[in-house]
Amino acid sequence: MRVVDLIKKKRDGNELTPEEISFLIQGYTRGEIPDYQMAAWLMAVVWRGMNERETRALTEEMVRSGRVLDLSDIPGLKVDKHSTGGVGDKTSLILAPLAAASGVPVPMVSGRGLGHTGGTLDKLEAIPGFRVHLSLDEVRETLRRVGCVLSGQTNEIAPADKKLYALRDVTATVDCIPLMAASIMCKKLAEGIDALVVDVKVGSGAFLKTEREAAQLARTLVAIGESMGKRVRALITDMNQPLGRAVGNALEVIESLDVLKGQGPEDVTALSLELTAQMLVLGQRAEDLVQARERVRQLLERGAGLEKFRRLIEAQGGDPHVVDDYGRLPQARHRLEYRAETEGFLVAMDTEGIGRAAMLLGAGRDRIDSPIDHAVGLVLARKIGDVVTREDVLCTVYYNDETKLSAALPLLRESFIIGDAPPEPPPLIRKVI
Amino acid sequence: MRVVDLIKKKRDGNELTPEEISFLIQGYTRGEIPDYQMAAWLMAVVWRGMNERETRALTEEMVRSGRVLDLSDIPGLKVDKHSTGGVGDKTSLILAPLAAASGVPVPMVSGRGLGHTGGTLDKLEAIPGFRVHLSLDEVRETLRRVGCVLSGQTNEIAPADKKLYALRDVTATVDCIPLMAASIMCKKLAEGIDALVVDVKVGSGAFLKTEREAAQLARTLVAIGESMGKRVRALITDMNQPLGRAVGNALEVIESLDVLKGQGPEDVTALSLELTAQMLVLGQRAEDLVQARERVRQLLERGAGLEKFRRLIEAQGGDPHVVDDYGRLPQARHRLEYRAETEGFLVAMDTEGIGRAAMLLGAGRDRIDSPIDHAVGLVLARKIGDVVTREDVLCTVYYNDETKLSAALPLLRESFIIGDAPPEPPPLIRKVI
Repeated sequence: MRVVDLIKKKRDGNELTPEEISFLIQGYTRGEIPDYQMAAWLMAVVWRGMNERETRALTEEMVRSGRVLDLSDIPGLKVDKHSTGGVGDKTSLILAPLAAASGVPVPMVSGRGLGHTGGTLDKLEAIPGFRVHLSLDEVRETLRRVGCVLSGQTNEIAPADKKLYALRDVTATVDCIPLMAASIMCKKLAEGIDALVVDVKVGSGAFLKTEREAAQLARTLVAIGESMGKRVRALITDMNQPLGRAVGNALEVIESLDVLKGQGPEDVTALSLELTAQMLVLGQRAEDLVQARERVRQLLERGAGLEKFRRLIEAQGGDPHVVDDYGRLPQARHRLEYRAETEGFLVAMDTEGIGRAAMLLGAGRDRIDSPIDHAVGLVLARKIGDVVTREDVLCTVYYNDETKLSAALPLLRESFIIGDAPPEPPPLIRKVI
Repeated sequence: MRVVDLIKKKRDGNELTPEEISFLIQGYTRGEIPDYQMAAWLMAVVWRGMNERETRALTEEMVRSGRVLDLSDIPGLKVDKHSTGGVGDKTSLILAPLAAASGVPVPMVSGRGLGHTGGTLDKLEAIPGFRVHLSLDEVRETLRRVGCVLSGQTNEIAPADKKLYALRDVTATVDCIPLMAASIMCKKLAEGIDALVVDVKVGSGAFLKTEREAAQLARTLVAIGESMGKRVRALITDMNQPLGRAVGNALEVIESLDVLKGQGPEDVTALSLELTAQMLVLGQRAEDLVQARERVRQLLERGAGLEKFRRLIEAQGGDPHVVDDYGRLPQARHRLEYRAETEGFLVAMDTEGIGRAAMLLGAGRDRIDSPIDHAVGLVLARKIGDVVTREDVLCTVYYNDETKLSAALPLLRESFIIGDAPPEPPPLIRKVI
């Protein structure tokens, strides 16, 4: 087998066999196939796509490139959730403890933020002392003791994915449904899960801007998972405005705790409860969705999710007192009330712009190695459909650095679209696949 | 400017500006842009193509990456010929001396064979002592003294092309009209020519299998050349069977000498004379094609091309006595008459198969660094349209190695297609652009 022939085969629109995909992925992971051949192949895949058989083979080979966690000695069906990424999306911090409180073990491996999107690991690290780099033994042990664990991807898990993703990032081959699907699924499958709920974001703050693409990714994820004996449910949810009100790491931890206390914004509460309910059904802790929703609502009201989160923070080395005292979280030195210059209805938001503004404040990173300021960010005072009068506060900006503030403000100015007529508020959950 | 954004721009089907193309080509030549980003960009170009403006900018940047020969002190319009490559194509050895004999200076830079095609440099090196690696000063001096020169590409000429071609070869990005056109033209333009005749081969032994692709390449070459102030004429010619009868280096030198003696096969003689006539018109040594053809015919009959070739061999360090004594060329130790197993008409040939058979005998190379046996090859006894009776000799195989012969024979067996009805013989010159 010659790499150049496999590149040519894909370039000409033909299907690769599982053996050919194995040759490419294992050879690349071992360093036998150079980056430049892989880059040409990746672009040919962006061009020609991959069918379900190829995508499944790619996923399997990426799983095979590293270790697979065996969690069979921990009782119960292990269920995880994955989100394709958005702005203000802190549901992982809410649903992992809630699902664990209901008896579903959640071995969650999360990522960091890049560009306009935040990352679960960055949010968790806003909690003083919280350790996200756990060994596989620590992951297993935390899962056993607490019922959930939130950790970063280790080098042992799917190294092919790590290497490929770094290459895709610099060769403009990220935007490709089968490559995205395989990258998502391989990490989750290597975690040793039995089932997965996927939250596919669509809209102005998501990577996928159209519902058609989102549905295509959702269907691909479900098909790959099911062909490998895992139950997968995908929800297509709205990302035309930030989820909840807080954007920025410590600010999002606070909002997550508010939700677990029954005091969070309506949208992020509703989505977190629905995703948790789906996890309960997949994890066979409820007969059906109706029962699952009721169960999750009761757990939330009893504060069971909050207590589980407190235990998780403690188990992973963090300061559990942040749960009751938000003052223990990093605090920005300054705040600014960003006000409306006109009046009407808030009809739309450039959510990616808001995410970028938060990034420029220091809440996110432009490059993989940029440092993060966990304290900064913004909290929305208005959401789509709200009435806005002149000089109304649109959001409060938390910042530490005047220069960064001046970089972020022009983006904010463009991100709130105020119109004359009340808009149709976007539905939060668009489709379940 | 970021490379990843330029890859994305091309990936999404947009036109790159001349500044962007310059950034890519000069950055890559200087080693500042890594192979993997260039490979992804090249595949995006294969996918999306390049328009005339982009192709011209690419050509100019590749020329700019190295030295440009200034031949303005040598009188007359300098004219070269380029062929896109085929099997048995030895016209360069014939037309360079013939055109020079008519007063057109020919500064020809040639390449080596790869895969099923032969290369002019390899053929010349079958002549004992012949040096193809000349310095730029030697190129100029030989051109001044002899009127023509046949040399290899130096590292000073279009280094971007050399580097890009090596990358394209291993990333399945060779088959792409604008990339092919820029690669051809940049070397010719750096030679300091005023005009160029291009022989675009089409058919079973050519890189381009359809006349549509051949015409597209021809039009692109003419457009690039003319936009840069050079006169370019492109002929689309048949490569559904080897040109002439000899395939293999020393064997093709002999056939070339036969043509220059007026004793060569009809097709290769006709095509060589026509290409030379086109060069005379572009070089303003004839009023029109009718006059040019007559002039070239007379020169051939007078033996002027043969004498010029003798002088050229001597000037480049070769043994000039090979012109009269073919025994001084490398001789294969064995020969085998390959005979027909059935009867009828020779209706078609798999010309690429015949080229590959010659390569397997040792006449060509599979990889850039494979050694060559200049003595081996084959001489066709039958061409398309000929009557074949059982046990008729189809070709004589010249070989030195039994193992290589056994590898080549199965390919030969598949390459001669004998049918019941006489075929329409393919026209030699299909179109002039």
